[in-house]
Amino acid sequence: MAERLIYLPLGGAGEIGMNAYVYGYGQPGRERLILVDLGVSFGDMDGSPGIDLIMPDLTWLEGNRDRLDAIFITHGHEDHLGALGHLYGRLNVPIYARQFTGALVRLKLEDQGHSPSVVNIVGPRPEVTQVGPFTVQFVPVSHSIPESAALIIDTPAGRVVHTGDFKLDGTPVVGDPFDPIAWHHIAEEGKGIKILACDSTNIFSPNPGRSEAMLANPILDWVMAQKNMVVATTFASNIARLKTLSEAAIAGGRKVCLLGRAMRKMVAVGLETGVLTDFPDTIGPEEAASLPRHQVMLLATGSQGERRAASAQLSRGRYLGLQLKEGDSFLFSSKTIPGNERSVGRIMNALSEMGVEVYDADDGLYHVSGHANRPDIEALHELLKPQIVIPMHGEHLHLREHVMLARAKGIAAEIATNGTVLDLTGDVPRIVDQVETGRLYLDGTVLIGAMDGVVRDRIRMALNGHALVSVIVDEYDNVLPDAWVELMGLPGRTRRGEDLGAHIEGELSEFLEGAAARVVRDDAKMDEAIRRITRQVAMEEIGKKPEVTVIISRLMGE
Amino acid sequence: MAERLIYLPLGGAGEIGMNAYVYGYGQPGRERLILVDLGVSFGDMDGSPGIDLIMPDLTWLEGNRDRLDAIFITHGHEDHLGALGHLYGRLNVPIYARQFTGALVRLKLEDQGHSPSVVNIVGPRPEVTQVGPFTVQFVPVSHSIPESAALIIDTPAGRVVHTGDFKLDGTPVVGDPFDPIAWHHIAEEGKGIKILACDSTNIFSPNPGRSEAMLANPILDWVMAQKNMVVATTFASNIARLKTLSEAAIAGGRKVCLLGRAMRKMVAVGLETGVLTDFPDTIGPEEAASLPRHQVMLLATGSQGERRAASAQLSRGRYLGLQLKEGDSFLFSSKTIPGNERSVGRIMNALSEMGVEVYDADDGLYHVSGHANRPDIEALHELLKPQIVIPMHGEHLHLREHVMLARAKGIAAEIATNGTVLDLTGDVPRIVDQVETGRLYLDGTVLIGAMDGVVRDRIRMALNGHALVSVIVDEYDNVLPDAWVELMGLPGRTRRGEDLGAHIEGELSEFLEGAAARVVRDDAKMDEAIRRITRQVAMEEIGKKPEVTVIISRLMGE
Repeated sequence: MAERLIYLPLGGAGEIGMNAYVYGYGQPGRERLILVDLGVSFGDMDGSPGIDLIMPDLTWLEGNRDRLDAIFITHGHEDHLGALGHLYGRLNVPIYARQFTGALVRLKLEDQGHSPSVVNIVGPRPEVTQVGPFTVQFVPVSHSIPESAALIIDTPAGRVVHTGDFKLDGTPVVGDPFDPIAWHHIAEEGKGIKILACDSTNIFSPNPGRSEAMLANPILDWVMAQKNMVVATTFASNIARLKTLSEAAIAGGRKVCLLGRAMRKMVAVGLETGVLTDFPDTIGPEEAASLPRHQVMLLATGSQGERRAASAQLSRGRYLGLQLKEGDSFLFSSKTIPGNERSVGRIMNALSEMGVEVYDADDGLYHVSGHANRPDIEALHELLKPQIVIPMHGEHLHLREHVMLARAKGIAAEIATNGTVLDLTGDVPRIVDQVETGRLYLDGTVLIGAMDGVVRDRIRMALNGHALVSVIVDEYDNVLPDAWVELMGLPGRTRRGEDLGAHIEGELSEFLEGAAARVVRDDAKMDEAIRRITRQVAMEEIGKKPEVTVIISRLMGE
Repeated sequence: MAERLIYLPLGGAGEIGMNAYVYGYGQPGRERLILVDLGVSFGDMDGSPGIDLIMPDLTWLEGNRDRLDAIFITHGHEDHLGALGHLYGRLNVPIYARQFTGALVRLKLEDQGHSPSVVNIVGPRPEVTQVGPFTVQFVPVSHSIPESAALIIDTPAGRVVHTGDFKLDGTPVVGDPFDPIAWHHIAEEGKGIKILACDSTNIFSPNPGRSEAMLANPILDWVMAQKNMVVATTFASNIARLKTLSEAAIAGGRKVCLLGRAMRKMVAVGLETGVLTDFPDTIGPEEAASLPRHQVMLLATGSQGERRAASAQLSRGRYLGLQLKEGDSFLFSSKTIPGNERSVGRIMNALSEMGVEVYDADDGLYHVSGHANRPDIEALHELLKPQIVIPMHGEHLHLREHVMLARAKGIAAEIATNGTVLDLTGDVPRIVDQVETGRLYLDGTVLIGAMDGVVRDRIRMALNGHALVSVIVDEYDNVLPDAWVELMGLPGRTRRGEDLGAHIEGELSEFLEGAAARVVRDDAKMDEAIRRITRQVAMEEIGKKPEVTVIISRLMGE
C-alpha cells in the first residue's frame, strides 16, 4: 500500500486552547507518528464548574502508542505544554524542545513525578532532529513568550511547516525576531513547502500586527505620569512585557516587586536559560511595603481576573502586607480573553472603589497581541508559498475564515477540526477518517472524561438545586412511613410559608403508606416514584424541579 | 427642620442593570418619595446559577411606602421596567409612563396578575404630572427603543434632570430624535438645572456616537449581497433596527418572518401604540420555510446568545420547520454585552459548522449603540449647564470616570452607588446616609434574597460536588453500623479503582461502630463527624472536599 502523510488534530482545532496535533507518515494504519504540543484549557463556571484544567482525550494516541516516536513542544504557553505533566505517563516517548521551553517542560514533568531527563533540548535550525520518517527543525518565530518556534517537518511526502503561535515582529524586545529572509530560504529549499499548518487566532483582526517594542514609550510615559504606587499586570510568561514594564519602573526611580508564583518562576527560568539578560533587580513584598509609594512598581499575576492570583488578591484588600490606596495606579497591560470579562471587570471595579486609577489597554498603547493578524497571515502565505494551508489554533469560525482566505488566493485549504484525519499526500487535502476525540477534566487529583456525567450533574445541581430523600425499608420489606428530606440550593418555604422540606416529607409519607409491596421491593420503582413526587411538589410550591437523590436504606435482620 | 432634596439609587448605580432610583423632598426622614424605573438584571452561571431574574431589594422603600407617591418609567427596556410585575404588589402606587412604554408596563403587570389600570399614560412635555412636591415632565430622548424619555423633576429645591438612557441621535429612524433646542430651553428656564442625573454606560467610548440612520445603507448593501436565506438578530425592543432590517429585506425582494415571542410582541405593541408605522407585512415560519431561500429574511431573538431564544434554536438545528444550510447568512446586528461572549461565540461557531456565513457588527457597519459616548456626555453637560452631576447607570469604574469628567469642567459631582443617600439641596452633593440595599433573585416562582444562601449552596455544589450520607439511629439510640452514601457531581472511583461511595461507606461504618453514645444522641455532633470523615476520605482519594449533606433518620418506637 502506498505510504501517506497524515494530519490529525486532537486539540486546538475548533477551539482556542489545549493544542495537540499529530502528524503521521507511512502505510495507512501503520504511519509512524509524532505529536506537536500537548496543552490545556481552563475550566469555567459556565461549562465546567469545579474543573481546573481541561486537556485533550488521548485515547486514540494511547491506542497507537507503539507508533508514536516523539513529542515536540513549540513554546512554553500552558495551552501548548500544560497537559504534559498529567498525560506524559500515557505516552512515554522522548520530548524535544528548545532550551527555555524545555526548562518549563521539565518543571511540568517534575510537578507530576516524572523524570525531567526525557526532555531533549535542541537548538534552532539548522540543527535537525531525526525521528522515524520525520526530520524536524525548530525555527525561531516571534510570539508573546521567548523562544516560540515553528517546526519544519520534512517527510518523504514533502515539507510541512507547523507555525505554532507566531506574529511578524522584528523587534520583540526579548527572544527571537521573525526573520523573513530565513523563511524565504526555507520556502525555496528543495520542492518548497507543501503544507502550512497555520495559527488562525487573529484571522478576524483586520490591521497588521504591532511590535512589542512599540509599547516601551507609552509605558514609560505612563509610569512617569503616576504619583503613587504603580501596579501592572500581564501574562507572567510575557517576559518581554515584564522587561518593558520593569525598565520603565527603573527609569522612573521605582523598584520592582514581582507578585505571584508564575511571575517569579518565569523570570527565574528566563534568567537561568539566558533568554532574559539584564532584568532589573527586584525586591520582595516586605521591602515594597516599606518604601515610599512613588518608589514602587508591583508586577502582579492575574491579568485575566483569576480569583487566586495577585491582582485579585490586591483588589480584595491586603496581600503580603501590601495594600492599595486612593491615588495608586493599576495597569492591565493585557487583553481580556473572551469569557473573562466579568472576572476582570470585578477586579477593576473593586480597585475603582478603593480610589485606584485603573488603566486598560483598550486604546492599544499598553498591549500588543502575540498572534499574527489577518494581513500578517496573508503575508506569511505569500512568503512561504505553500501548496496547502491547514488552519489550526482557532474556533470553527476562525478555521473557516482562514480556509476562505487561502482559497481566495488559489491555495488548497481544508477545515480539519479535532479528530479529523487529513491525508496530505496529494495535491489537495483529503478527509480520510474521523477518530473519537474528547476532553479530559482535571478535577482535584483525578482525570475524568468530559462526558462522564460528573460535570453535567454539577451543572444540573447549580441550576435546579438538589433535594435528598432518605427512606427506610425494614428487614420484612415494609417501608417505614417516614421520609427524611434535605434541600440544598433550594428556597426553603412553600407558597403558604411552610417548610418546604417538611411539606415534601408529608407528601412522600402519604405515598409510602399506600405503596404496593411490588414497588417497595424494587429500588428502581421506589426511586422513580419518590423522585416524581418530589419534583412535582417542588414545582407546585416553588416553580422549579430540583435534582433528586433518593437513598433507600434496606435494613438487614439482626 | 429645613426641607431637603435627596437622591437614593436602589439599583443601577455601581452596576449596569436593574435600575431603580429614588428621589425625595421634605423634612429629613419625612421626605415625599418617587421612584424612577424598576428594572431587572439577568442571572448567569458564574454568579447566580439557576436564577432567571435579578431585581433590587426594596426593603427600604417598602418600609417607607407611606411616603412613596408614584413610580415613573423612563422607557421600555427590561433593566428599567422588568421588575414591575414582580414587585408592584409591595409598592402599590400609581405608575406614570408614555404610551408605548406604558403598554409594555401593562403587559408586565398583567403577567403577574396586577391590574393594568394603575398605569397612567402621560404625554411628553409640556404635559406635567404633579406628585407631592414634584412636578414631572417626560422629555423625549433618542435611545435604542422608541419613546425613551428623560425626566424633568421640578422641586422646591430646584430642577432635576434624570436622563434615563439616551444618546444624541437626530435621526433615530423610529421614535423621537434628540432635540438640542428643546433642551437648551429647558436649561434656560427659571434658575436652570440644578442636578443632572446622567447615563454613564458609554463613558469609556472615546468617539462621538453614531446615528441609527447610518445603518440603513450598509444593511441594505449586505442584504443585497446575500444569495440564500438571510437571518438577522438584534434586541427585539430595537424597533428602529427591526424596521431598517425589514425594509432592506423588502428592497431585496424578501419577505420577513419574525422569530421569537419578544420580537412579535414588540412589533405588535409598536404598531398598536402608533410609534411604529408602515412596518412591512410579515409571514409565519411555515410560509418562510416554503419560499425559495433567497426570498426570506428571518428576524430572530437571541442576539446575546440566550439558550432558548430563536437564534440559539436555529444554531442547534431545525426550529419551527426552518433549518439553516450551507450558503445562508446570519447577521448579528448587535453588540455582545460583556459576559455573554461565550454564549454568542457558541452560536456563531455552530452556525459556521453548518456552513452558514456569520457576520457581526465589529466593524461598526451593522450596529450602533443606544447610549451617549464620552463626547456626547460632555456635550450634554455643556448644553444643560447643571450645577451638579450625579452619574448613574454604570459600574463603579463608569461612575468614577464620569465624576472626574464633570469635576474637570468645574461641575460638582459625586459617586453614589446603590444605597447611598445624597442630599442635593446645597451647592454640592453631600452623602448623608447609607441604607441597606441588595438583590432579589427570581428562582422559579419564588423571590429569594441574594444573600439567603440558596445560590451560595448551588455554587458550592457546582464547584465541589455533593456527597449525601444517610445513617439510621434506632429507637434505643443505637446507631446502625451501616451508612448509605450517594455521590452527585463527583468522580466515582478511588485511587485504587474502587467505588468511592462504597469506600466512604466503609470508613463511616468504622466510625459508627465505635461512636460514643453522647455523639450518637446529638444530631450536630453526628453531622459534624460524618461530614469531616467524608470530606477527609474524598480529599485523600480524589483530591477534593465535597459538600456533604447528612440525613440522620431517628426511628421511633412502633
